[in-house]
This record gives sequence, C-alpha cells and structure tokens, in this order.
Amino acid sequence: MATAAEADAMRRAITLAARGLGSTSPNPVVGCVITDASGHVVGEGFHQRAGGPHAEIHALRAAGVLARGGTAYVTLEPCNHTGRTGPCAQALVEAGVARVVYAVADPNGEAAGGADTLRAAGIEVEQGLLAEEAAAGNAGWLTSVRLGRPHVTWKYAATLDGRVAAADGTSRWISSPESRADVHRLRAEADAVVVGSGTARADDPHLAVRGVAGATQPLRVVIDTEAVAVKPGARVLDDAAPTAVAVAEDVLPDATAHIADVWRLPRASGGGLDVAALLATLHTRGVRSVLLEGGPTLAGAFVAAGAVDRVIGYLAPVLLGAGPAALADAGITTITDALRLDVTETVRIGTDLRVTATVPKGA
Amino acid sequence: MATAAEADAMRRAITLAARGLGSTSPNPVVGCVITDASGHVVGEGFHQRAGGPHAEIHALRAAGVLARGGTAYVTLEPCNHTGRTGPCAQALVEAGVARVVYAVADPNGEAAGGADTLRAAGIEVEQGLLAEEAAAGNAGWLTSVRLGRPHVTWKYAATLDGRVAAADGTSRWISSPESRADVHRLRAEADAVVVGSGTARADDPHLAVRGVAGATQPLRVVIDTEAVAVKPGARVLDDAAPTAVAVAEDVLPDATAHIADVWRLPRASGGGLDVAALLATLHTRGVRSVLLEGGPTLAGAFVAAGAVDRVIGYLAPVLLGAGPAALADAGITTITDALRLDVTETVRIGTDLRVTATVPKGA
Repeated sequence: MATAAEADAMRRAITLAARGLGSTSPNPVVGCVITDASGHVVGEGFHQRAGGPHAEIHALRAAGVLARGGTAYVTLEPCNHTGRTGPCAQALVEAGVARVVYAVADPNGEAAGGADTLRAAGIEVEQGLLAEEAAAGNAGWLTSVRLGRPHVTWKYAATLDGRVAAADGTSRWISSPESRADVHRLRAEADAVVVGSGTARADDPHLAVRGVAGATQPLRVVIDTEAVAVKPGARVLDDAAPTAVAVAEDVLPDATAHIADVWRLPRASGGGLDVAALLATLHTRGVRSVLLEGGPTLAGAFVAAGAVDRVIGYLAPVLLGAGPAALADAGITTITDALRLDVTETVRIGTDLRVTATVPKGA
Repeated sequence: MATAAEADAMRRAITLAARGLGSTSPNPVVGCVITDASGHVVGEGFHQRAGGPHAEIHALRAAGVLARGGTAYVTLEPCNHTGRTGPCAQALVEAGVARVVYAVADPNGEAAGGADTLRAAGIEVEQGLLAEEAAAGNAGWLTSVRLGRPHVTWKYAATLDGRVAAADGTSRWISSPESRADVHRLRAEADAVVVGSGTARADDPHLAVRGVAGATQPLRVVIDTEAVAVKPGARVLDDAAPTAVAVAEDVLPDATAHIADVWRLPRASGGGLDVAALLATLHTRGVRSVLLEGGPTLAGAFVAAGAVDRVIGYLAPVLLGAGPAALADAGITTITDALRLDVTETVRIGTDLRVTATVPKGA
C-alpha cells in the first residue's frame, strides 16, 4: 500500500506529464518526480517534445546530487534503449537513486522496458501506483501501441435536446465563449484535428490553436472525399499549422492541385472514405491522438467503425426542438446495440456543462 | 447581514418545507424553525397537508414556552387570515416570540401577509433571508399565484446525442435504474403527472408513485385528444391514484364512457389540445405543480406555449445516432430564437447525469 506522500508524488508526475500533451508524439507523455532519501521533492521533469530529453533526465538534472539514495516516481516504465537520447534506466542507475516507482509498464513488452536493468543494478523497483490515472493521461500513445491507430476523441457542442444547429442551419453560438476557448486547449493537446467536407463547406474552419500559450499546432486534416470542399484560399490551407486533405483515391489530380499534402484513400462502402485507412495514414504520420471535430455524419462514420475512444460533449442549456442531432447514422438501430460509455468527468464551463465519457475497452 | 446561525436556521426551514412537496396544494409549502432567546433551536415544523396545521403552529407546539423571547424563521410570510386554521401571525404573537424572520413575502400583497400584524404587536420583523432558495422551493405555489397556472417541470431521459429511443422505437432502458427510481420522487413532489396520447399508446404507463415512503399520489392526466389512446383496462385507470383524461371538446361521449373524469378542452390550432386551457383546468383543480412526462411532441407543444418552467434531463452516457430526439417542434427555427435556460444543478444518478435547468423569468 502506497503512502499518501508516494501517491502525491506520482499524481504530480501525472500532472507534469500532461503538460507534454500534443507535442511529444510519436513518443508518450511522461512525468517524473524525484524525492531525496528523506522524502523531499528535489527534482521534477516531463518529456516536452520528441527528440528532447526524457522526463527522467530533466528531473535528474534538477535534482543533481540530491537524487542519490532517493526515489524516482515515473508515470511510465523508464526506457532501456538508446534512441535520440540515452536510456533513462542507465541514467537513473548512474544518478544513484535507490528506488524507482513507475505507474504503467512499457506495453512493448518486458524486454523493452528498463525495469530489469534497474533491478540488475540493485535498485528497488515498484510498478502500478496510480496506473489507471497515468494510463488515461497517456491514452493516445497507449492506444497507438495497442491498436496501431491513434486515440480518437469526438468533441461536439449541442443543446440539451441534442441539436448541433437550428432548423435553418444556424449554430452560432450554441455553446458559451468559455466552451469555445476550451476547445482550443483540446486542439493543443491533440496531434491532429479532423473534420469532414460538410464542416469544411459550411464553416470554412481554420482549425488551428488560438489563445493557448506555447501550444504546438496540430495537424489539420480535412476529409474531402470528392475534393470539392477545400477550395483555393480555404482558411485551413494557410500556414498557421500543417494541413492534409484526404480525398478518394480515384479523384482526378487536377482537383487537388492547390493542396500541398493530399492523402488518396479508399472509399468506404457506405460513402465517404474508409475510416480505418485514414487512421492508418494518421498513425504512419506519427499522429497518436486525434480530435474529431466534424459534424454528425463524420462522427457517425467513426462510431460505426468503432473508432471513437472518448467523447467530450459541451452541453448548452438550450432547447431547439428542431435541427440536426449531434450524431447521425452510426449503424445502430435498436437499444440493445447502443454504444454505452462511462462518464469520467462533468464540469461546468461558462454556462455549459462539459461531459467526458470513455468507450469501455472491448465495446 | 445575517449571521451564519440565522442562515442555518432558515436553510433548515427550507429543507423542512420541501418535505411537504406534493401534499400541500393548493397551499404553499412552508417550513419553520424557532430558536430561543439564546439562539438554540427549540422547535421545528412544516406544513404537511392542506387543511392541517401550518408550519408555524407545528413549530410553536414543539417549542412550547421556550418560544417566548425567541425568533421564528419561516420560509414564507406568516398568514394573517383565518381559513381552516387560525392566523399564524396571531399565534406567533400569543407565543411571545420577539422576532420573526421570513424569506419570501406573501405575493398576494402587503395586506394579505402577517408582517404588519406582527409589527403592530411589537415584534421585530425581517424579510428576505435566503429568499431565492425559499422561492425556488415554493416554485409551484408562487408560479400559480403569479401566473394563474401550475409550475411545469418537463422531465426526459435521453442519450448523450439527445435521443429518447432507438430507430426501431425501443427505449428500455436508456436511463439507469437509479434514474428511473428518482423519477418516482419527482412524481411524489408533483401535484399532477401529465403525458400525451403517444406515450399512453406506446407504453400503457401507470404513472403512480412507487417506492417513495409516505408519498401522496399525484393526479394522473393523459392528454388524449381524440379519445383513442386510453382504452378500457388501461393501467392509468386503476385506483392507485386519481386520473383525468383530457379530450377534445368535440369528441363523442361514447368514446369516453369508460373514463370517470373526462376534461373536454378546445383543440389547439396546430393539433392536440390547447395547452393554456389544460393548464387553466389543472389550476382550477388545485394543481400547483405539474411533472410533464410526455414524449417529444407534447414537450414541444408545452415549450411552444411558453409553459415549461423547469427542465430535468436524465442524460445517459449512451450513443444511438438515430431515433427520435427528446424535443420535437417547439416553433423555434433559428438559433437566436432558442430557449436559453440556466443550469441550477447537475448530479450523477447511477451511471447517468441529471441536469436541472430553469427557464429565466420573462423568457
């Protein structure tokens, strides 16, 4: 049983790790807290960007000689391989820490992680402290390792009666300014933001992050099956962030001449592009987390493909009684086939309610 | 500025008042706490049922001689008239209380209330402590006094994408068992439960309260415009609670021969019955609060008529992507005409989220 101080240290490490969301892919986010022999925090660090030092290295630098005989709390099993940076397990051994507590094991397998290296060097090693919280914070990377596709968060803003627009198509604004600002935080934490041709045509969205200090811009992805929605001069084609446009593989090259990064993908049998093929391409591009901001049709296609892992709904205390619903056809026709989620958080955002729910594994 | 002890006493009085919800109409709910000269609580009471003693009388009986020189905290201005029970103002004078603090003034006007009587007897009188909370707790009665119609709460259970059933009409169950049990509490607190013919036909609902100890059964009301949905043997016609069926005034008497209490009302121009006429009839019957449990069509008619005061949504973390939305046509076609509410409470109920929102006055 972990002490309260140990849990506090790991919780802090998880908080630190989250600061890397959106800028570490294809790497995981990792946080590290080092305490000295008497339990005082002497170093903190997190993995800030791919190619930069790992969390343990930042924390060890901060701790200096005070790490000797202390404990390192790490959200993920320390790495054992020499990539662009040296192996963290070795760095922990050299710093003389007496004990390493990590939350989540390296899912690449026992041999991949550094636990054995640490043990072989006589360091006490424990695994599993706040593992669930740490795994949730690393959902993008862990999903990618396990499934070979990015973690997908579907975000929507709707009225209490589930509408995303009024009968005449107007939708500005259903949600509060605070909710709309919060979406920029979600974008900053994601590797890619994805919309469909309906949203591209109706809103000419920009999709870049605004108002989040130090944010890494996500890859903007428009699914424009027929290559008709993203026109020359579309806001999403500016240089504020990278952009890719996914079109059907049979679209003529002329139709995409104005777009630098075009992905040609197979069509889905029910219309649109094949979701699995899109996710595979995103994975290949190093995208570990996707924020799905498309409309009801695209969201329905993702749900039907079993490709939604998390739902974040901004529910505005508004009634319309008409207009499109937040989610269109997802291939569900009867109540026993409904997709049942677990609510993990509800928060008031401005006048709205933000509900976060996750799809149970295996659903 | 009230002290914390004074606010505590009034908050307790508001809690006590709520225990009368559903059984005091056409009277208000009222709670009373009496403290002695040194501030200790020496008596509590609430109005339990119409015709029974008022809250102040219960509390004065409990306090006995200890009320002398003390303070009475009452959620509503003490009454000044002799109805089925004597005037409370006079009882407070005779008991020798030194001070009366009440939250909400009698909306029937200055002359109606007992404040003047109390002052004339040399009692210190203060008004307004926790007035907003107390008024919210008495919304049924206050709405009835102000508008001449019952307070209406629209209750629904929907998925996160706003559906109340799947595409094939199945809906058992969208919400959790805990949510469904909570609805019985709402029914117990209401004077009447109202559904439309669609719900009557599809579900043959019983609409009585189950599983709430000591509950007063509400009046069950089915709006069955053409007198075709409530058939002989319908569950709502049993003797578990009183029942009225509202039909169009031009329906032939034979069609309602099996129903004891039939209300013949004018048709609305858009179909169904005239909502205002229905509410007027409910008011005449002493109904001060209505729980609207009908389906999307009936709810839309009430919203369109400006006759929804509060919305309680049980949101299940479920996605369907098809099926009827919680609210049908309410005469709103563009976003600027949307009905905007204030969220007053959000609570987790089982696996669901219960959202309570009120319609701002004047909306």
